[in-house]
Amino acid sequence: MDFRTEFVPVTVQPQEIEEESFRIITEEFGPHDFSEEQYKVVQRVIHASADFELGRSLRFNKDAVTAGIAAIRAGRPVIADVQMVQSGISKPRLAKFGSDVSVYISDPDVMEEAKRLNTTRAIISMRKAAKLHDGAIYVIGNAPTALLELIRLVKVGEARPGLIIGVPVGFVSAAESKEELLKVDIPFITNIGRKGGSPVAVAALNALSLLAERQG
Amino acid sequence: MDFRTEFVPVTVQPQEIEEESFRIITEEFGPHDFSEEQYKVVQRVIHASADFELGRSLRFNKDAVTAGIAAIRAGRPVIADVQMVQSGISKPRLAKFGSDVSVYISDPDVMEEAKRLNTTRAIISMRKAAKLHDGAIYVIGNAPTALLELIRLVKVGEARPGLIIGVPVGFVSAAESKEELLKVDIPFITNIGRKGGSPVAVAALNALSLLAERQG
Repeated sequence: MDFRTEFVPVTVQPQEIEEESFRIITEEFGPHDFSEEQYKVVQRVIHASADFELGRSLRFNKDAVTAGIAAIRAGRPVIADVQMVQSGISKPRLAKFGSDVSVYISDPDVMEEAKRLNTTRAIISMRKAAKLHDGAIYVIGNAPTALLELIRLVKVGEARPGLIIGVPVGFVSAAESKEELLKVDIPFITNIGRKGGSPVAVAALNALSLLAERQG
Repeated sequence: MDFRTEFVPVTVQPQEIEEESFRIITEEFGPHDFSEEQYKVVQRVIHASADFELGRSLRFNKDAVTAGIAAIRAGRPVIADVQMVQSGISKPRLAKFGSDVSVYISDPDVMEEAKRLNTTRAIISMRKAAKLHDGAIYVIGNAPTALLELIRLVKVGEARPGLIIGVPVGFVSAAESKEELLKVDIPFITNIGRKGGSPVAVAALNALSLLAERQG
C-alpha cells in the first residue's frame, strides 16, 4: 500500500511520548506512601486513565507486587474477565515467560450455564477458570460479579490465585466487590470506589510484567 | 464442563444491573444541557467510567448524533485506533446494518512504514483507513497522534469520515488533539481535557448503535 501524503505533521517518537508522560505524572502526583515498585503500577494506571484520583485510590496487599512478579516469571496463566482486558495486555512480554491470556466469558459452555442458572456469564467464567488453573493471575477490569465470585471461590477453597488484580468499574456492586477483596488475605491489587475499568486492570498487569522483565 | 459448586452466591440479572446503574446515573447527574439523544451517549460514557466529570466534559458537533446514527444504519465501516476499542464495540448490532470494525495499527505494512518514517503506527493506520474507506466512522480512544493525523487528512481532503469519535486519553497531546477536533466542521463527539480512553470511545459508539437499532 502506498502511504505517501503531502507532509508529515508531527515528529512523534512513541518512546519519547511515554517518557514525557511519566515525567508529568511524577511531577503532578507529588509525595506518596507507595513503595517504589507499587508506584510503578500506580504511575502506569494514571498514564492509562489521566486520573490522579484513581491512582491514589489503588490499594495493594503487602505481598501483591512480589507475588505478581513471581507468578508472571513462573509463566502462570493470566485470566481476563472480558475481551477488552485480554486485548490490552502486552502478550509478547508474557510469552517470554511461557504465559498467555485466557478469557472464558464468551465460551459456549459458559454462556449456556449462565442462562440455565439465570446468572452472569462473568460468574460462570470464573468457575471455569478456577477449575482449569491453579496459581493463575486474575485480571478483572469490568465485572463486579466476576470478582465477587472469585472471592467466594477462594474462601471455599475452590480457587487458588497467584494474584488478583480486581478493579471493576461501575455503580452496582463494583465498589462493594473491591471492599470484599480488601478483606481477603491473598495477593491483590485493587482500588477504592466506583472507578476502575479495563485500561486500569491492563495497566496494572503490564506494569508488573515490565517489572518481571527487568528482573530477568 | 461441570460447573457445580456449593451454592450460588448472588442472583444477578445483567439487564437489572444495567437498569439500576442508569437510574443511579440520572439521579446523581442532575440537570444538564445535552439533548435527549446526546444524553444517551453521555449516560453510557458515565456507565463505562463511573466518572461524572468525564461525562460532563463531552462535546458534540451539532450533527454528530444524527450523522452517526445515519452512518451506522448505512452500514459504514467502523475504524478503531487500537485493538481494545475494537474488542469492546458491540459487533452483532453493527452486523445487522452490514457494518464491522477494522483496526490497522498492527498490520505489517503499517508497522513497517511507521518505522521507516520514524513516526507512530497510529498515524500510518489512519492514512491506511482514509485510503481504503469513504464515510467511515472513526473511533479513537487511545492515540492522540491518530486523531491529529485524521484531522489533518480531513483538512487536506484525503479523509471523508461520516463521524469521528475522538476521545484519546493522556498527558501528551491528548487534550490538544481534542481541541483541534472541536474546531473542525465535521460530525464529531469528543471531550475536554486529558481524560478519555478506549471504554469511553466504545461506550459512545455503542450508545449510537443502540439508537440506530431503536430507529429500525
